[in-house]
Amino acid sequence: MTTSLNLVDVPALSDRQSPAGPCEDCCSLARGPLDVDDAQRSAERFKALADPMRLRLLSHVAAQGCDAVCACDLTEELGISQSTVSHHMKKLVDAGLLIREQRGKWAHYTVVPEAFAALRGLLELG
Amino acid sequence: MTTSLNLVDVPALSDRQSPAGPCEDCCSLARGPLDVDDAQRSAERFKALADPMRLRLLSHVAAQGCDAVCACDLTEELGISQSTVSHHMKKLVDAGLLIREQRGKWAHYTVVPEAFAALRGLLELG
Repeated sequence: MTTSLNLVDVPALSDRQSPAGPCEDCCSLARGPLDVDDAQRSAERFKALADPMRLRLLSHVAAQGCDAVCACDLTEELGISQSTVSHHMKKLVDAGLLIREQRGKWAHYTVVPEAFAALRGLLELG
Repeated sequence: MTTSLNLVDVPALSDRQSPAGPCEDCCSLARGPLDVDDAQRSAERFKALADPMRLRLLSHVAAQGCDAVCACDLTEELGISQSTVSHHMKKLVDAGLLIREQRGKWAHYTVVPEAFAALRGLLELG
């Protein structure tokens, strides 16, 4: 599995499908104090990750690389209800970490590599 | 500023001062489903990051590289009380992201590069 991870800007939550800019170092915690808006946006994304079940769901999707994962498979693999899956996946989609696509009866999810790259860039120390 | 980031294991919270193991890929979300314990540990660390003020405090410390930052400077730079600084810094220390050292009257903080590297490794997709 190969995933392109060239984009490391922190896209605005409302603008996460657009091409990310050349911002890598400027988004790093180590580049200097974060301003209030950047801190707020990044905190929202970390909040989406701050739940064990969401991390497990995310790992199931991330393990498929660029392939979409059906919500129906997630309920089965994790042994949780469809409504619990939907609840957690909505938070991950809202945070810009996943894209949701409806295919017939079932929602399908894929990772947003730029969002992960942005968080890795933020956590870069040197 | 150069910070060594060779260690990418996710150290247990109770064991975060010890040398990290060779685990890089195995901790990545993309390597396959996270088990319950790994998900719990990582979620706790993300929870510490899921607050805008803590991210701003962390960025002040991270910007100093390996140098310790005095709590007295953080209160001044961010315009918040000493008790608020202490509250947030305790959560970052408990999550293993910072080390706290008492020097006379004031606490001083430095980043734990291995913890940041572990989170970056977890967010690696390919």
